[in-house]
Amino acid sequence: MRRLPFLPIVSALFLVPCAGQPLSSWNDNAAKKSIVDFVARVTKEGGPDFVAKSDRIAVFDNDGTLWTEQPVYVQLAFILDRIREQAPSHPEWKQKDPIKSVLEGNLKAALAGGDKAILELFAATSTGMTTEEYGGIVKAWLATARHPRFKKPYTELVYQPMLELISYLKEAGFKVYIVSGGGIEFMRPWTERVYGIPPEQVVGSTVKVKYDVSGGHPALLRLPEIDFIDDKAGKPVGIHRFIGRKPIFAAGNSDGDREMIEWTTAGNGARFGLIVRHTDGDREWAYDRQSAIGRLDKALDQAAQKKWLVVDMKRDWKIVFPFQK
Amino acid sequence: MRRLPFLPIVSALFLVPCAGQPLSSWNDNAAKKSIVDFVARVTKEGGPDFVAKSDRIAVFDNDGTLWTEQPVYVQLAFILDRIREQAPSHPEWKQKDPIKSVLEGNLKAALAGGDKAILELFAATSTGMTTEEYGGIVKAWLATARHPRFKKPYTELVYQPMLELISYLKEAGFKVYIVSGGGIEFMRPWTERVYGIPPEQVVGSTVKVKYDVSGGHPALLRLPEIDFIDDKAGKPVGIHRFIGRKPIFAAGNSDGDREMIEWTTAGNGARFGLIVRHTDGDREWAYDRQSAIGRLDKALDQAAQKKWLVVDMKRDWKIVFPFQK
Repeated sequence: MRRLPFLPIVSALFLVPCAGQPLSSWNDNAAKKSIVDFVARVTKEGGPDFVAKSDRIAVFDNDGTLWTEQPVYVQLAFILDRIREQAPSHPEWKQKDPIKSVLEGNLKAALAGGDKAILELFAATSTGMTTEEYGGIVKAWLATARHPRFKKPYTELVYQPMLELISYLKEAGFKVYIVSGGGIEFMRPWTERVYGIPPEQVVGSTVKVKYDVSGGHPALLRLPEIDFIDDKAGKPVGIHRFIGRKPIFAAGNSDGDREMIEWTTAGNGARFGLIVRHTDGDREWAYDRQSAIGRLDKALDQAAQKKWLVVDMKRDWKIVFPFQK
Repeated sequence: MRRLPFLPIVSALFLVPCAGQPLSSWNDNAAKKSIVDFVARVTKEGGPDFVAKSDRIAVFDNDGTLWTEQPVYVQLAFILDRIREQAPSHPEWKQKDPIKSVLEGNLKAALAGGDKAILELFAATSTGMTTEEYGGIVKAWLATARHPRFKKPYTELVYQPMLELISYLKEAGFKVYIVSGGGIEFMRPWTERVYGIPPEQVVGSTVKVKYDVSGGHPALLRLPEIDFIDDKAGKPVGIHRFIGRKPIFAAGNSDGDREMIEWTTAGNGARFGLIVRHTDGDREWAYDRQSAIGRLDKALDQAAQKKWLVVDMKRDWKIVFPFQK
């Protein structure tokens, strides 16, 4: 008899939107609806689009899809910082490019050599140590480095709506992977803490690594030789190699993700392709077809043809970063 | 008051060994005890050897550790069958070795060319198709092929005590991986069904694979080029690449597994190395130091020095295969 008066209060608790609701940083519009509809379809047992839990694989690009990639990729910021930090013990670095130009503060000149220059900077700063040492260096750097515009640790410059999307998919039984052009060992030390994605669910570019017992303690040495570039047509290859199943959901933000989304969305059954489009110069950045970093051109055309969801940051996201909550 | 008389019956229910008990195909001796003790230690919260669930990674070799590798590796049996099956549409195969000798029934001559010959046989039978096609071929072959001695499907020639060990570790919160010198794509189509290990938890040797849209449907083509050999010193490298964490438990049966176990058992905290020693010519095979397949020589010496558990099939296992139950 005393229960009835409480009913409206209880209902209100369940109906009022709150921070704990799924996808609460997404505006209530068509973009959010298409995600929710897809998840409802593939998880509805007995429904025509039902997908067994073991086949609910979702893949996310990292740079520009889960965290900011401007004004330079975070891994490049790491490399540049490390060159400046290590320079005193490498006097020979002042003699030749590309490192010379980095030390002179001329990034444009340093990168003028293209991929070869980037590989040289990478080899000088990110190889020649054990995998354990490298992981420690990455963690130590992330603990102190600050983004030049936002003055925050890079790991706080992750997109809140995408964190919610990862959680939402995991709640729906998806196994969520990162599939990035970035170095696999640059990401694995922190993805579990920041995204809730464990190291074994991170796919990325790799260097050759060598088993070595010469120091008395068995270790793995990072060699200055690229093993695999997990970008563009390499992404489906990397997914196949590491996961061994074709995903049904793929999210990216640039032409580097085009083949991954194309492959994921081809085939039978319900499939979902998502492109994050950077349209918000005030809260983050606005760039697409002409950008040197994160160019989104062919993939944008293909998204329209193939009906991939193009997420417009400005239109679809209530906030971009967690600290804007 | 009526409860006391039932107590002995209830206790008996929990103490009498039965098929549903963990490790029930293992004899109750020191080998089984050391496994049970290890698992108890790493799962005891607050204990000195406790290991967080996310770090409970176990790796198992496949050939000779989980299923029989005699008289030839199962993958080689597949390759030989496929040569005989495809020969009618390849008249040129009769002209040159190593395929010529296979077709003449002279395996010794066919394999006289060593690794190069094996690679040629492999390339002729296992590349040049899409990854989906290859998976289908493997499954179709396994459904009909029979082991020459036991006249059973190869997937029934798995070691019952090792299946129980996998289940036991999974129950204790371990994530269990296969780490095999065999082809990753030769294993992934069936490991979930046979071992309860999903494709993404299978590490193995890989061929180069190419993303291809020329057929209108995006696909991955298997190229006749080795990408990575997951054997010997390659095993720690493969584990690091695919899993990104160091296991705390490693099981193998040959010198090909030596580095994997050496690396796994080096370092802080409780760690477990296990070697399956083939000592049972009646129920399976007896071979070790001098065997061409599955040679166990250096790893056997190292097992004694490092106190890895050497499982003696004859002494430690009640049955070998599930059909002996």
